[in-house]
Amino acid sequence: MTRLDQQIAFLNEADKLKSVLRATTLADGSRRENSAEHSWHLTLYALVLADQAGPDVDINRVLKMLILHDLVEIDAGDNPIFGNVDVAAMAAQETIAADRIFGLLPEDIAENLRPIWEEFEAAETSTAQFAKALDRFQPPMLNLASGGGSWTEYDVTEDMIAARVGTKIERGAPGLWHYAKARISAFFEQA
Amino acid sequence: MTRLDQQIAFLNEADKLKSVLRATTLADGSRRENSAEHSWHLTLYALVLADQAGPDVDINRVLKMLILHDLVEIDAGDNPIFGNVDVAAMAAQETIAADRIFGLLPEDIAENLRPIWEEFEAAETSTAQFAKALDRFQPPMLNLASGGGSWTEYDVTEDMIAARVGTKIERGAPGLWHYAKARISAFFEQA
Repeated sequence: MTRLDQQIAFLNEADKLKSVLRATTLADGSRRENSAEHSWHLTLYALVLADQAGPDVDINRVLKMLILHDLVEIDAGDNPIFGNVDVAAMAAQETIAADRIFGLLPEDIAENLRPIWEEFEAAETSTAQFAKALDRFQPPMLNLASGGGSWTEYDVTEDMIAARVGTKIERGAPGLWHYAKARISAFFEQA
Repeated sequence: MTRLDQQIAFLNEADKLKSVLRATTLADGSRRENSAEHSWHLTLYALVLADQAGPDVDINRVLKMLILHDLVEIDAGDNPIFGNVDVAAMAAQETIAADRIFGLLPEDIAENLRPIWEEFEAAETSTAQFAKALDRFQPPMLNLASGGGSWTEYDVTEDMIAARVGTKIERGAPGLWHYAKARISAFFEQA
């Protein structure tokens, strides 16, 4: 196998992310979103909402994180934010998935890309916290657009959103949580 | 409408790219690819195949081009590379689409992002030529994986691929065309 054969084998494997379905629907409610198009949408969020990032945030690295962040779902699946998930078991599964999937790449490329995914997962840097905030901010925007979406399916309350989603948005992008909170409250008042 | 309302209105409109279908199928042949997940896949191509770019190529700008490059298809639709297309009419349609879609953004953001799309379209810089090369390189990789895909549907020959796809891959990423050409030849010999 040549170097390019390895690179293409990885890219063909990554194609499977287009078949991993998330809980959230498209904005028009027509079908569930897949993790590949979700990842694209998030990169566009990063470009358009870059003014919500703090001065320490490296937007180019945010883009790379968002491109890579869901690849492990090819093996580990998507875990809906309001589902009941064993966090430690999920993290262990995702590490095994990362070993296999990044392991398809030539070693130098894997050594370049995997730490970007690890930094996102650890959520300790401002850059990773901003990327995580976008990942939590986009689903409520889609749910508001579609008139409830996965909130209805999972019997989600305003308090559950604040606890599981709001804290992470607020940490990485406080202005976006301020905005989302008001719109979510208005939605639940009318519902 | 606040600034954030405008940003979110743009991002909700962009969601429609997930419903624009391309000629190419997924690698497993299960369904046609949409332009949003295609855009994500291309950004991953850029990260993994960055070693195929010349020294003048700005990979961070390539990522931004690939994120934005198909947004105009929300209004103008996808034009299959082997379909019969009036190139001038298509360019005119895409300009009208760009006016409307980038026009949804706050002016300073539109003034930042639209030139990135214009640079991609003009394909005059090394950065844009590399981004274009990836956009032409990914569909044959999917067709090879799926056993023919859109080549079969459009009665495509090896010469047509060289003329319509090969020239653009070769200009921006000669090593990728060298690789693709050999694999495409082998495919058509066996077919």
